Amino acid sequence: MQTTSIRTLYQRTSEVQPTNLTVAGWVRTVRDSKTFGFIEVNDGTFFKSLQIVFEDTLENFKEVAKLGVGAAIIVTGDLVMTPNQKQPFELKATQIVIEGECPPEYPLQKKRHSFEYLRQIAYLRPRTNTFGAVFRVRSLAAYAIHKFFQERSFVYAHTPLITASDCEGAGEMFRVTTLDPVHPPKTENGEVDFKEDFFGKMASLTVSGQLSAETFAMAFRDVYTFGPTFRAEKSNTPRHAAEFWMIEPEIAFADLEDDMRLAEDMVKFVINYVLENAKEEMAFFNQFVDKGILERLQGVASADFGRVTYTEAVQILEKCGKKFEYPVYWGCDLQTEHERYLTEEHFKKPVFVTNYPKEIKAFYMRMNEDGKTVAAMDLLVPGIGELIGGSQREERLEVLLERMAELGLKEEDYWWYLDLRRFGGTRHAGFGLGFERLIMYLTGMTNIRDVIPFPRTTGQAEF
Amino acid sequence: MQTTSIRTLYQRTSEVQPTNLTVAGWVRTVRDSKTFGFIEVNDGTFFKSLQIVFEDTLENFKEVAKLGVGAAIIVTGDLVMTPNQKQPFELKATQIVIEGECPPEYPLQKKRHSFEYLRQIAYLRPRTNTFGAVFRVRSLAAYAIHKFFQERSFVYAHTPLITASDCEGAGEMFRVTTLDPVHPPKTENGEVDFKEDFFGKMASLTVSGQLSAETFAMAFRDVYTFGPTFRAEKSNTPRHAAEFWMIEPEIAFADLEDDMRLAEDMVKFVINYVLENAKEEMAFFNQFVDKGILERLQGVASADFGRVTYTEAVQILEKCGKKFEYPVYWGCDLQTEHERYLTEEHFKKPVFVTNYPKEIKAFYMRMNEDGKTVAAMDLLVPGIGELIGGSQREERLEVLLERMAELGLKEEDYWWYLDLRRFGGTRHAGFGLGFERLIMYLTGMTNIRDVIPFPRTTGQAEF
Repeated sequence: MQTTSIRTLYQRTSEVQPTNLTVAGWVRTVRDSKTFGFIEVNDGTFFKSLQIVFEDTLENFKEVAKLGVGAAIIVTGDLVMTPNQKQPFELKATQIVIEGECPPEYPLQKKRHSFEYLRQIAYLRPRTNTFGAVFRVRSLAAYAIHKFFQERSFVYAHTPLITASDCEGAGEMFRVTTLDPVHPPKTENGEVDFKEDFFGKMASLTVSGQLSAETFAMAFRDVYTFGPTFRAEKSNTPRHAAEFWMIEPEIAFADLEDDMRLAEDMVKFVINYVLENAKEEMAFFNQFVDKGILERLQGVASADFGRVTYTEAVQILEKCGKKFEYPVYWGCDLQTEHERYLTEEHFKKPVFVTNYPKEIKAFYMRMNEDGKTVAAMDLLVPGIGELIGGSQREERLEVLLERMAELGLKEEDYWWYLDLRRFGGTRHAGFGLGFERLIMYLTGMTNIRDVIPFPRTTGQAEF
Repeated sequence: MQTTSIRTLYQRTSEVQPTNLTVAGWVRTVRDSKTFGFIEVNDGTFFKSLQIVFEDTLENFKEVAKLGVGAAIIVTGDLVMTPNQKQPFELKATQIVIEGECPPEYPLQKKRHSFEYLRQIAYLRPRTNTFGAVFRVRSLAAYAIHKFFQERSFVYAHTPLITASDCEGAGEMFRVTTLDPVHPPKTENGEVDFKEDFFGKMASLTVSGQLSAETFAMAFRDVYTFGPTFRAEKSNTPRHAAEFWMIEPEIAFADLEDDMRLAEDMVKFVINYVLENAKEEMAFFNQFVDKGILERLQGVASADFGRVTYTEAVQILEKCGKKFEYPVYWGCDLQTEHERYLTEEHFKKPVFVTNYPKEIKAFYMRMNEDGKTVAAMDLLVPGIGELIGGSQREERLEVLLERMAELGLKEEDYWWYLDLRRFGGTRHAGFGLGFERLIMYLTGMTNIRDVIPFPRTTGQAEF
């Protein structure tokens, strides 16, 4: 069908031939009097709707006047500028074709619905202002991530989702299987015989693409992943989902400083891209979801991010006189309350915390000279706490082997990962960004279920 | 580290400050005589390598001369133009720091390796010319897909991977579970009690995001997915993988014609983007992997794609006088040999085959007026056969219900999908593009295992 999108009408008005144009979309509201009426129609291409004016000269005037909220229509008419009204123009209809009716039991009648209720009709919620805005921002932010890395010639690597190793040990994993659930084949010991399973061994859904990404960084130097990851944790919180998307860049010939610079540049790029390309959506969030979010994001985009070591951060927290629910001491894992105090009250801007105790970080992080801390960094941002976690990786084979032995990790499970240190290894670094957390940060939405099209959580896999 | 990428040296030579610059990368070859030597170094940012010239004035001349293939080095020196040699410039080293050695047991010594062998060391193969080129093209093609849709204001939807419904019935699925494999909880009937599983019911990995994408198209009008999909088929062929990426656009207020136009525009856009941004890689494929691929792709990018109905295509095949392995008759599913004959020998260009018998297509495809065929389309391209499969979707509730009843599909399993036809439904269409098949098409690689970083197939989930 040849139609003009409402986005084009608003953004490139002067290019639009104003007579006899056709717009197709869904009815948001209808108001009518005896001889004329107005329809707000939204076609999903733009946050704002288009006002349609129709008169009783239409042959189907009565049917149009009775249209339900949600109905699909195709309108032909002339665009009329209305500089003195709240909308810049309206479409005077010469024809309205009803493409799809919408009955009164349509759940999205014109009134406010709670986010909880809308989750139950997740297949319809993108048609609301809030979720239309959330999922458009999600789409734009995803593209901004790709644009940022591609313009720097990073190679996008599709690391595998099904994995036969739990290399990171980062959390509970889902098993992937085609075995008969009731009568699986068994070994002599009575264990399930995974040799008979699809992949010839036990397989799971990945918790991170990092180790695979490191193999690519040793070939392409600058690479990133952007794909789904999974955690089978039964935490029913507003911040946890079983399926979520992660971005994991990995850079060779690079140290922790390079890593932080990259993270800072990326966050600023994405914020600027979204502020520029989702003006209407961001204004909506600022007004209805999180007052002040625009100012906060603009501030972040122009601030120099702070730097503080973990040791200094602990001292700041110990001396600040604030009562925390979780006690602070050297060696403790920083909780969200600590992180938010640091970034919101102490630094009043995003801040990188570096050089964490090795005990609370992963085995592959590079040991610092003190033998106690590792070259890790977390980026804390106001309103959220931790947004990014990264590190320089341990490239020294002996040090890595020693650390793995300490933690009881088996060399044979990591043979190819260790080989990366044997065959032309280099200093390298990377980080992980949870994409949903970024979207929460950009929109002000506070429940992860409200930034994923069809969220998967404990007991929940609807749609 | 402050370094200059070899990509910058080649592509933006004039911007490079030629003295005292630093390049970091991996040794491809070393040749030395008593007082000087040459190193080809590749840093992964560009297909071509950089020639380093070093002399015995270097304090570590002996170590450098003995460097193994694959070693990581950091070279500082001056760029010297060499217009009369095969490379346009070389770097005269004033310092070479050895970042990471590479011993002689490194499996990628300078010689040709078979693709089969390289699959066994998939963690190293991106360092070779062929796989470096394949995975850079893969990255660029992925970005081109996003760029194409985003520039047309399509919304990118992350449809779920874990699903509790096998809606498409498109193939064998992997089960996703956290139940004890040996002693799963059971119901009174002795069946596994999936109520006790993580999601409270049996869950699987998705075979397609289409049905979810349709919900988004009914909100945003133009949307696309780009994510992993899974098939648990035990077909051990060069064309099948258990985990692969798919692109699935879905457009509302659109019919089969609009769908084909979109597919044609997208394919041409991606080809042009890759030809322009991977010149060196494409020249390599043309010379070493698939002679003539450049000409073929350029031809496709400038041809008008053909159109033929299934019924006409069957007539062409019946009359062509060629012996096929599989017989051709009205109602048969076209095999690759038929598809390739049509596109390569008959039309000699890409061709859309439309209006297939309903029996060989999915339930959601729109019934044509003849009651026998559906508004489906497959795009056939030379060298591959089917590249894209799509259709206009059945938007008429009664017709869809009738078709589902014929096929024994239960309404309650599709309640939300059917609701899309109740609440402001519109004509709409979409298609699916297997991303790996596109990469094979763009590179001339003939085994799907060679276009996926770490392929997953029956019995294979290494790395």
